[in-house]
Amino acid sequence: MTDLRQLTDIDVLDRAGALALLDRADALHGHATARAPALDRLAGRTVVNLFFENSTRTRTSFSLAARRLGAEVIDFNAHTSSTAKGESLVDTWRTLDAMGCHAYVIRHGSDDAVAELAKVAGPEVAIVNAGSGASAHPTQALLDAMTIRHHKGDWSGLRVLIVGDIRHSRVARSNIKLLRLLGVGELRTAAPPSLRAADLSDPDIVHFDALGPALEGCDVVMTLRLQKERMQGANIPDGEHYFRQWGLTPERLALAKPDAIVMHPGPMNRGTEIDGAVADGPQSVILEQVGNGVAIRMAVLETVLGAA
Amino acid sequence: MTDLRQLTDIDVLDRAGALALLDRADALHGHATARAPALDRLAGRTVVNLFFENSTRTRTSFSLAARRLGAEVIDFNAHTSSTAKGESLVDTWRTLDAMGCHAYVIRHGSDDAVAELAKVAGPEVAIVNAGSGASAHPTQALLDAMTIRHHKGDWSGLRVLIVGDIRHSRVARSNIKLLRLLGVGELRTAAPPSLRAADLSDPDIVHFDALGPALEGCDVVMTLRLQKERMQGANIPDGEHYFRQWGLTPERLALAKPDAIVMHPGPMNRGTEIDGAVADGPQSVILEQVGNGVAIRMAVLETVLGAA
Amino acid sequence: MTDLRQLTDIDVLDRAGALALLDRADALHGHATARAPALDRLAGRTVVNLFFENSTRTRTSFSLAARRLGAEVIDFNAHTSSTAKGESLVDTWRTLDAMGCHAYVIRHGSDDAVAELAKVAGPEVAIVNAGSGASAHPTQALLDAMTIRHHKGDWSGLRVLIVGDIRHSRVARSNIKLLRLLGVGELRTAAPPSLRAADLSDPDIVHFDALGPALEGCDVVMTLRLQKERMQGANIPDGEHYFRQWGLTPERLALAKPDAIVMHPGPMNRGTEIDGAVADGPQSVILEQVGNGVAIRMAVLETVLGAA
Repeated sequence: MTDLRQLTDIDVLDRAGALALLDRADALHGHATARAPALDRLAGRTVVNLFFENSTRTRTSFSLAARRLGAEVIDFNAHTSSTAKGESLVDTWRTLDAMGCHAYVIRHGSDDAVAELAKVAGPEVAIVNAGSGASAHPTQALLDAMTIRHHKGDWSGLRVLIVGDIRHSRVARSNIKLLRLLGVGELRTAAPPSLRAADLSDPDIVHFDALGPALEGCDVVMTLRLQKERMQGANIPDGEHYFRQWGLTPERLALAKPDAIVMHPGPMNRGTEIDGAVADGPQSVILEQVGNGVAIRMAVLETVLGAA
Repeated sequence: MTDLRQLTDIDVLDRAGALALLDRADALHGHATARAPALDRLAGRTVVNLFFENSTRTRTSFSLAARRLGAEVIDFNAHTSSTAKGESLVDTWRTLDAMGCHAYVIRHGSDDAVAELAKVAGPEVAIVNAGSGASAHPTQALLDAMTIRHHKGDWSGLRVLIVGDIRHSRVARSNIKLLRLLGVGELRTAAPPSLRAADLSDPDIVHFDALGPALEGCDVVMTLRLQKERMQGANIPDGEHYFRQWGLTPERLALAKPDAIVMHPGPMNRGTEIDGAVADGPQSVILEQVGNGVAIRMAVLETVLGAA
Repeated sequence: MTDLRQLTDIDVLDRAGALALLDRADALHGHATARAPALDRLAGRTVVNLFFENSTRTRTSFSLAARRLGAEVIDFNAHTSSTAKGESLVDTWRTLDAMGCHAYVIRHGSDDAVAELAKVAGPEVAIVNAGSGASAHPTQALLDAMTIRHHKGDWSGLRVLIVGDIRHSRVARSNIKLLRLLGVGELRTAAPPSLRAADLSDPDIVHFDALGPALEGCDVVMTLRLQKERMQGANIPDGEHYFRQWGLTPERLALAKPDAIVMHPGPMNRGTEIDGAVADGPQSVILEQVGNGVAIRMAVLETVLGAA
């Protein structure tokens, strides 16, 4: 994997490459969560957070990952920047490159912006997709896989369910790609009709129109955030209504395997897509996901900067 | 004091604990104001500024304090963060904790948010209140006490006046608690009726309805910022009008003791609560307060992180 | 130049001083663009970015310059700060000074704010103008001169053209001052009548009302950004219309000397003031300007902090 320079989506990885990133993140976990000292493998390198959508959480995770490898971090707030003055993403990147920056962590509202920049910038430029449109969020998928692997051994025996707003979810799309690549046994999705994704109706994904049957026999339950601004368009009157049909409650979770783990990419809407008792319960690995996120981002930054 | 982990308000301190923080801040003063080199006592620790109200001034003071002890600083802008997406303060803290952050400096508009988080997070989690609602601003009170002690020796002989918008002032409330704890001789407040605080009408606080008589014989005059947005509600037509009755002018200041010191928590409204000639005059210790603020915050961070 | 503490505009430099900064920036270029390791000449110093206008690009350039000299950087966002609460620039500076900050990089919408602060603060306080109103942007002029000198030797033989919105341009004003100081052979400006600057109609500046004739025989073509918000006031219907008359196209550029260089302070409006083919063409030195900008800002910070 030492030749990976651009993590635009899961597609750029082969199975060995994905597993190598998971292995490396495992090794870095203590440093990522500050139980072990920071490293200096990226000393002298400058990592730019180039965020066109607000996300303090993901930005902070990348910042900590970069700093715990010894890199400098520049937060280039794209809302108040020259991009807001009409400059293209490519010109913004060229400017930062001319200033001696080394890696670009990009979040963008458009599906294709990150991949397009990667093409123009050329294959030697280190680029990490930190979430683009509804299409890709590869580091989220990797941290999810790292978390699953820690709790469940063999991929081929696993039944994984993704629940909620599949339609608008880059988390779902990248997870599905990675879980297939890793060879997961059975992939399930569950969503109300208006939140189902037409592009994810392949025969190898088993789709459910109700949460109860979908949960039966699952090893992993991945709950997606319901974005409030999308509820109206989806004809869902409010969060309470959604919770009654789709909220992950302790009663519903009991339909899954007894040792099933519960995941959520955060930030959670307690009482909308997930019951607080489940979020804080013994099957929840939600906070482990957060710590694994820093470790995965360290592994990815190290790799795209050729320091792995 | 090495067991203090949460400075939610002055109440958590006993007299010895408060004096220990003042002593430690005195010892750190050169490092705080960059006349002496930065220290590395907090190397490897990450301090998060979690500000739900804008305050570049206080945030910068905490940032410098943390960095001059060798800590990393994360600015978690709560306005544009996951909290804005509906996440609770507790969930935001849990996320940052899972990322390996070590101390939380919190400013919040609500009176109770910081104390409530401290309760949920548990007594081992390092939390510093950087200003909450109208109730508490303990590091401001400590830096004020540090400044007073530097100029005036014995607490029991001192007459201290707090002037202005007492009603909405967390600075006044924390100062009153700390000055009582330290055993100040006489505590006075002075405010127009609409800005007087019902909760601070204890018999041991002498209240005045006019500034002149309140100033007589005072050793310390603490002027509060008049927040413009509150002037209308308080039936104060404008800043000029307020200044005529309540502005600290050289003529009025002459009613206090000749060696009285003048304090202000900043930012000042010159010509509203204070005359520029007083703010810049020989009795003003306002800029000393600012330098002492960094020293106090170093002492507090060191202590709550168990590095004192 | 070791006694320069305040770079408020080019006026404060003499010719030797300007050349010393260019020489020093040349020497620092590898460190500025991260091809050589960071330095520690400013270790223990704190540089404040005090920006009253948004400019992520210039702020990032100064941040990288300061950090690559080992300084700490504080971003004091003046939009959300105590200044927004009515505090004066002088009081904000006094506060930061009391916190032990060492140099102030200031961008301000007013022509005079930076110079006025420099006067009040006193000649020992390190202040750098990062752009003030329409009057001054001295580090831009220095990086432009550094770029020109790299490509063209002798100043006296050069013909330099500045094209576009001269009237509102601090870049134009500082460049004209510096190019005169360096003894440039011929200075030309070209602009539509509404964007011509009355204060720059000296006999030694040759003004043109059309781009074609202005370009003839030029060694350097400096294109200015057309600020969209000014197009209406200037009776310019839209960017396309402006481009037809004033856009720097390959055809027009062919009227200049064959080895003429093309400059732009960024961010560019491709298709408005400059053709993408020119911006990316072999005569463009626009990205060199960006790298030189970090080097110039390192040289300036080193100098105003007495570390040169």
